[in-house]
Amino acid sequence: MKTITIVGLGLIGGSLAGALRGFEDYRIIGVDSNSAARRYAEENEIADVITDDTAYAVSQGDVVMCCLHPGGTVQFLQEYKDTFAPGALVADVSGVKTAIMQAAECLGDSVDFIGTHPMAGKEKGGIENSSKHLFDGAHYIITPRDNSRIENIELLKRMSRHIGCRDTIVTTPEEHDAIIAYTSQVMHVMAVAICDDPFMFDCLGFEGGSFRDCTRVAALDPELWTELFAMNAPALAGTIRRLEERLAAYREVIESGDEDMLMKKLKYSSDRKRAMNIEHRRGDDVLLPQE
Amino acid sequence: MKTITIVGLGLIGGSLAGALRGFEDYRIIGVDSNSAARRYAEENEIADVITDDTAYAVSQGDVVMCCLHPGGTVQFLQEYKDTFAPGALVADVSGVKTAIMQAAECLGDSVDFIGTHPMAGKEKGGIENSSKHLFDGAHYIITPRDNSRIENIELLKRMSRHIGCRDTIVTTPEEHDAIIAYTSQVMHVMAVAICDDPFMFDCLGFEGGSFRDCTRVAALDPELWTELFAMNAPALAGTIRRLEERLAAYREVIESGDEDMLMKKLKYSSDRKRAMNIEHRRGDDVLLPQE
Repeated sequence: MKTITIVGLGLIGGSLAGALRGFEDYRIIGVDSNSAARRYAEENEIADVITDDTAYAVSQGDVVMCCLHPGGTVQFLQEYKDTFAPGALVADVSGVKTAIMQAAECLGDSVDFIGTHPMAGKEKGGIENSSKHLFDGAHYIITPRDNSRIENIELLKRMSRHIGCRDTIVTTPEEHDAIIAYTSQVMHVMAVAICDDPFMFDCLGFEGGSFRDCTRVAALDPELWTELFAMNAPALAGTIRRLEERLAAYREVIESGDEDMLMKKLKYSSDRKRAMNIEHRRGDDVLLPQE
Repeated sequence: MKTITIVGLGLIGGSLAGALRGFEDYRIIGVDSNSAARRYAEENEIADVITDDTAYAVSQGDVVMCCLHPGGTVQFLQEYKDTFAPGALVADVSGVKTAIMQAAECLGDSVDFIGTHPMAGKEKGGIENSSKHLFDGAHYIITPRDNSRIENIELLKRMSRHIGCRDTIVTTPEEHDAIIAYTSQVMHVMAVAICDDPFMFDCLGFEGGSFRDCTRVAALDPELWTELFAMNAPALAGTIRRLEERLAAYREVIESGDEDMLMKKLKYSSDRKRAMNIEHRRGDDVLLPQE
């Protein structure tokens, strides 16, 4: 029997532990320093073994999944770099990858570190909000090192399939961070920027579906997102700047009163969105079942 | 038996006609120049009477609901201003109100014109996408004239309740337009601006829930939204400018590397969003059943 150790039983760690139960011939060890999180994990049988002994749990893992916030992940790798079993696969789950892969250089080659990012989450963190269905239909992104072992990448793909992800994408940390700045981080920046408008509370009772959908993610965890934004600052700042420019272009054509140009712009943009929707659906066909 | 005439059997008109069936002692006449729309309305028994004779239908209405696009509404009021039955209640349903109320001044005092805006919609227009449940839980906004009759405002409130709206809000056209620029129009501008990023199609396979939610409304109808934006240009341009400023403020603090300040901003914004959610839920308690 082999062991997957889940470090950190929060929303992601708790969901991952629960979703991984029954995966091949692995037992699941969950470790957390927080007694309430451990009690919840025990009561809900989220892992086979639940402990507060990080050194023990880490040393047991054929696979160690670090499910801490990005800053906690960097600390964890530094602190336990000599504790991993030789040959172990070590992975994280955070939403930035370049900074994490750099931090993981402290591990050397006795373990295989591979960055991963299951693209799933909730506004509310904590194991009490975890669910073994959290990853259903999500994309799972993998950023290996140049010398990562193929069998470890294959193992992560099988794990992602077991937890319900819709597909697995292998890419570079830099590519991941540039894309994530656009598809995820700037959506959160937009949402919080909307909520900073002094006017907002005057608008209660006038929200339509678009307001609710566009601002949903604004109720974010400030500590987590400070780390995610700070660790991806150059890519994110560039993406925000491009958005500012495109908003200004829309504002200028609206101010100009040139309705033909406005319609042309709206047709261009909405056609792109419809094309994206079609490509997305096409992806459903091609990518399910997984590669 | 009294008559409600629905002018224009598209997404909103078709939904409204269907949802209004059985309202008090009113029969519903639906009128549209498009034969396919009329056939759909007949096959689905969306109204009691379906006709292409606008002058007849308009002259019969104790209540005339104009469910055309904003530009079409302006034309309709001008063209049929002498056809309404004296004393009729005439209303529109468009998402801008100041320009419509101004256009309605051509009607004089022989009819009572009241602007309305049921805050519901779909990405796809047309009667084939209509549903009598479209308005379930939506806000219904009413902008009367200074001399509108109380009994007509009350009648519109009863109609809004019958079609399933969650509440009715009476306000001025100017207030409506300022608020709608923020809660609805700028969400659409954001969504299309995101979709203009040259990078978008490279990001297929990396979309999370935030991307899907924030860009959902980008697949809009360019003609309709050109009219809505153009008819509310000053309020909308000001709202976009405020958003640009707040995005720039986020970008600058991210570029500066000042993580304390970034966390402070994120805490401020996310607290506002959580407060808005609480107020929204409180509104559910207070406002259901309707005033």
